[in-house]
Amino acid sequence: MSKVLVFGHKNPDTDTITSAITYAYLKQQLGADVEAVRLGEINNETKYALEKFGFETPRSIDNVATETDQVILVDHNERQQSANGIEDVKVIEVIDHHRIANFETSDPLYFRAEPVGCTATILNKIFKENNVEIPANIAGLMLSAIVSDTLLFKSPTCTEQDVQAGKQLAEIAGVNLEEYGLAMLKAGADLSDKSLEDLLSLDAKEFTFGNVKSIVAQVNAVDVNDVLSRKDELVNLLNKYNEENGLDLYFFIVTDILNNDSVAVVVGSAAEGAAKAFDKVLNENEIDLPGVVSRKKQVVPVLTDGLS
Amino acid sequence: MSKVLVFGHKNPDTDTITSAITYAYLKQQLGADVEAVRLGEINNETKYALEKFGFETPRSIDNVATETDQVILVDHNERQQSANGIEDVKVIEVIDHHRIANFETSDPLYFRAEPVGCTATILNKIFKENNVEIPANIAGLMLSAIVSDTLLFKSPTCTEQDVQAGKQLAEIAGVNLEEYGLAMLKAGADLSDKSLEDLLSLDAKEFTFGNVKSIVAQVNAVDVNDVLSRKDELVNLLNKYNEENGLDLYFFIVTDILNNDSVAVVVGSAAEGAAKAFDKVLNENEIDLPGVVSRKKQVVPVLTDGLS
Repeated sequence: MSKVLVFGHKNPDTDTITSAITYAYLKQQLGADVEAVRLGEINNETKYALEKFGFETPRSIDNVATETDQVILVDHNERQQSANGIEDVKVIEVIDHHRIANFETSDPLYFRAEPVGCTATILNKIFKENNVEIPANIAGLMLSAIVSDTLLFKSPTCTEQDVQAGKQLAEIAGVNLEEYGLAMLKAGADLSDKSLEDLLSLDAKEFTFGNVKSIVAQVNAVDVNDVLSRKDELVNLLNKYNEENGLDLYFFIVTDILNNDSVAVVVGSAAEGAAKAFDKVLNENEIDLPGVVSRKKQVVPVLTDGLS
Repeated sequence: MSKVLVFGHKNPDTDTITSAITYAYLKQQLGADVEAVRLGEINNETKYALEKFGFETPRSIDNVATETDQVILVDHNERQQSANGIEDVKVIEVIDHHRIANFETSDPLYFRAEPVGCTATILNKIFKENNVEIPANIAGLMLSAIVSDTLLFKSPTCTEQDVQAGKQLAEIAGVNLEEYGLAMLKAGADLSDKSLEDLLSLDAKEFTFGNVKSIVAQVNAVDVNDVLSRKDELVNLLNKYNEENGLDLYFFIVTDILNNDSVAVVVGSAAEGAAKAFDKVLNENEIDLPGVVSRKKQVVPVLTDGLS
């Protein structure tokens, strides 16, 4: 039997990368031959977390089927967000906190999804259920994932379980939660030196709402004008991307992590419909989304209802 | 918010009915307004278990969407096995031990699937994770489910986790595992008063092996002669069924639950080929299958290999 690979989604974020490392560590403690890998480049926030707690970046893989025949998915389950070649390997486990869609197996498997803010919060339980101790550096990674996914407990996706897990993990990791958390978020949200092409590749996920082929991307910003000052150029870029990829909608969310609001730049044949789903009128490809910070809870369900 | 309904699959078996009752009990202890219901008539084995531990049969529902807007699924996830109207309600939790297919949500949910022999084995863990004590009568139901799904630990689908859970639950329930288990299986496997038409409707599943349109049915028996003594009549009935439904194969398994062997009555244009898949020659529409008790693990894979 070949080595089992464990990985999160494409365009990896901090939860996806650290959950792959964390779960690989847990499985290794339980005797399995498992390696954490990644599907794409890591962002500055993740880089900050890995360096802080002394971890190497996992190696990148291209097509999973050329590497192994058994995989574990963390932080995602939808086929189109997963590795190239995923249909040619056997998924033996999934640990996730998203909706379930475009997922099918021919055999029973371990599938653990919970409606919490972060995969690391579920992993924290699984460590306990298996009586495996969490080392300080792994706890630091798990804390980083919770801070990232819940925006320091400010996101509506954040549950009491995430808060409790975050506090426990900060203690094990030996860091000040607020101080470390804000420093990590800021490391990922400084967009001033990013090209627009960089921004597009940071955290873009594919969705199909009814017949509307879409991408919903999100970037965190300390200053949303780092992006909005370049809106015309961004709209051109998104239009071009839509055309080249046969998409009907590019919904690009810029989230202000200090004030917990967002602005979306919306492009494509379904752009007006997408704005209408939020009871908004598109204003030069832009809509304000006050109080919105969660793609999963505050954007995807609205687009699902409005466009399907 | 309306009451949450919890139910297992259509053509309910013991695991499906008892897991609905068991999980409803657990959720009630945790403060939720939950009711266990069923999709269809219960069989004699389930009736025996409910009476033994003092439970009423859950009420039957027709269309779930006329009753509630939130449901919990146990022991299944595939849409076609679930309630009528399932697409019009929100699935908020799933506890299952089958493959995942034909299942999709728009929001994150609690989805707990594990590759064990029985849903009750997973529920046993969830009680512990929530620090809720299992009462003796609920433990009896959970034990009944494990005995039923694993044929008293004899099925190849049975895992060490099922065995351990079964032993713990028998102790809590205050019953002798072997004695009670065999009595329950026998209650469900007394076929002497069943018409052949009854037998055909008990547990028949459709499969397509390559181009071979098939039904693989299974009944448990204390005495296989309750069926085999009526073989000529059964063969006529199966031939007629095949003709009327354009089938190439009817593979009817009669499993001896005392000796853990099976005999198959095999009818149709692909009958010889099906026997050959097991390295057997068809003997008056019959083949012996010593040691075979699991359709899922010991019959379907062999027919898939031999006929596809």
